[in-house]
Amino acid sequence: MPPDAPVLALTTGEPAGIGPELVLQLMTEEELPGRIVAIGDPRLLAERAATLGLEVALRALAPGEAVPPTRPGVLPVWPVALRRPSHPGKLDVANAGYVLETLDMAIDACHRGQADGMVTAPLHKGVILDAGHAGFRGHTEYLRDACGIEEVVMMLATDSALHARVPDWQGSSALRVALATTHLPLREVADAITATRLERILLILHAGLARWFGIATPRIAVCGLNPHAGEGGHLGREELEVISPCLAQLRREGLALDGPLPADTLFTPRHLAAIDAVLAMYHDQGLAVLKYAGFGRAANVTLGLPFVRTSVDHGTALDLAGHGVADIGSLRIAVALAADMARRGAAAS
Amino acid sequence: MPPDAPVLALTTGEPAGIGPELVLQLMTEEELPGRIVAIGDPRLLAERAATLGLEVALRALAPGEAVPPTRPGVLPVWPVALRRPSHPGKLDVANAGYVLETLDMAIDACHRGQADGMVTAPLHKGVILDAGHAGFRGHTEYLRDACGIEEVVMMLATDSALHARVPDWQGSSALRVALATTHLPLREVADAITATRLERILLILHAGLARWFGIATPRIAVCGLNPHAGEGGHLGREELEVISPCLAQLRREGLALDGPLPADTLFTPRHLAAIDAVLAMYHDQGLAVLKYAGFGRAANVTLGLPFVRTSVDHGTALDLAGHGVADIGSLRIAVALAADMARRGAAAS
Repeated sequence: MPPDAPVLALTTGEPAGIGPELVLQLMTEEELPGRIVAIGDPRLLAERAATLGLEVALRALAPGEAVPPTRPGVLPVWPVALRRPSHPGKLDVANAGYVLETLDMAIDACHRGQADGMVTAPLHKGVILDAGHAGFRGHTEYLRDACGIEEVVMMLATDSALHARVPDWQGSSALRVALATTHLPLREVADAITATRLERILLILHAGLARWFGIATPRIAVCGLNPHAGEGGHLGREELEVISPCLAQLRREGLALDGPLPADTLFTPRHLAAIDAVLAMYHDQGLAVLKYAGFGRAANVTLGLPFVRTSVDHGTALDLAGHGVADIGSLRIAVALAADMARRGAAAS
Repeated sequence: MPPDAPVLALTTGEPAGIGPELVLQLMTEEELPGRIVAIGDPRLLAERAATLGLEVALRALAPGEAVPPTRPGVLPVWPVALRRPSHPGKLDVANAGYVLETLDMAIDACHRGQADGMVTAPLHKGVILDAGHAGFRGHTEYLRDACGIEEVVMMLATDSALHARVPDWQGSSALRVALATTHLPLREVADAITATRLERILLILHAGLARWFGIATPRIAVCGLNPHAGEGGHLGREELEVISPCLAQLRREGLALDGPLPADTLFTPRHLAAIDAVLAMYHDQGLAVLKYAGFGRAANVTLGLPFVRTSVDHGTALDLAGHGVADIGSLRIAVALAADMARRGAAAS
């Protein structure tokens, strides 16, 4: 590994969930990209390693200290102290501040250039709300606000069933699905699809694919909002009145956009082979197929931030925590993807 | 093939589309289930066979006449006359009545017991509307009204990527997705999900899986309406107020129902291995993943009719018609599925 391999800060997420053990398990693998540093409590990590019999030596660094090249079995840690001891599966509001502090440290390290990107293990939104952090909506929104940015784009990526374990992220059949709306009740979706929002989302998606994925002119397929993309107005008029005019305007500005296309036939090899990403209008339109295709090998990317951020695509799995049975597939993809994005981003800048 | 193999009537659909050539191409295959009879114009079929160099001999029967065991290269036909000669790719409103007459003959044959089921090639809704049949909404609704039934259920099925070419429809990992709403603008979906509708749809789905698929107590996974199935009310309240109470009532009546479940994690092996079908709340929530999984090997089933009806899952493909390049995969699945359903239905009655 070159000494200038990208530094990836891995937040260990909710301490009672599967995050800590997944990060430990990752470090037992032979080949890892980048220079990995965990952000969390070294004692917590040592306890979980002992419980699960994982032979991982922890190496406590000072916060922000330079990260050595990754070696299997050794986990450098930028330390954050738990507020109270944590037990697998047992949420504790006292540790909500700990979870947020790991995030703050990761953001700070990215801003200072001590890290080239961050990979987040799952947190538990409920316990953070219960701890009094009203208005907390999730990782993505927290990062957006911490960076003082108006809009970011959530995109999921998979190496697809056609790929080997280490994916070629440039392969056009790797499935990437971004969302125009994320966590909205379904009945609010149609009104949320405005030309202003679509334009912002598509410009961020276009720029993100160019900068972090090395795709000079990304081709994006845009789903319709309605079934059959409205079927010429018979099944809804948003395609005619909002989506199509917005796409026409952005094409004049140089974006390569297909659509609006019916979502049920877009996800077929004929379409997917020719594009770099799909923009779905809402959560279940895009993510059901993405996660089916991903089979635990998908990761979440936030585009629009000034640094790389990827995440696993699953939750804290409190019922599995401490048993060493959680699937590491998504974290492996999230780390590989973050490393690849960081390298491309550095080459582009 | 036993002489009592089920009789399947194949309507050839829009004459300018790919329907006629798909039916002809099917008859060149070595192993076909059931006793197949086409409903269409024998001259049209002879012309298309000659154009495409398909060696299929047509055998005109009288309408409703007994159908002999299927032999490769021989296509029995219950004849309906085109109103005007048809050319590939050229729609003609004059032939809209022909398309509807083939459907009427198939319905009649099923009612009289001359056929055990029907398989429909695609029709073109626009040309039927243009011909003055106002209110025509598609095959499914036409069949429903012709049978004097209030509600039917649209379900798509695939043999899934894990299956060999001839699927085991009993295999629990075959993907079956039924829809609670079909061709509605997205903004109308939330209000259309009522307890009354859900109850009717689930009872039809349950009874259809039992009668035609031989699954004594089918287990059905029901999607939530909202992302994350509403996340306990944070992302919409329809799960709490409408869907969950309806499922609870139906469980008391003996139905085996899971849910409401988040649609983006439901379509993963862990859930799919344990269930017989998924009920999606709306079109794109269920069909994007189904068609991705199907890769041209999915078929459409109408449940709730007094007979078997399956269909291809694609349109008329006017641009491909007459070139012999259309993919026969969906018709092959539709015919295999109809034969299997007819056999199981006969065994059950």
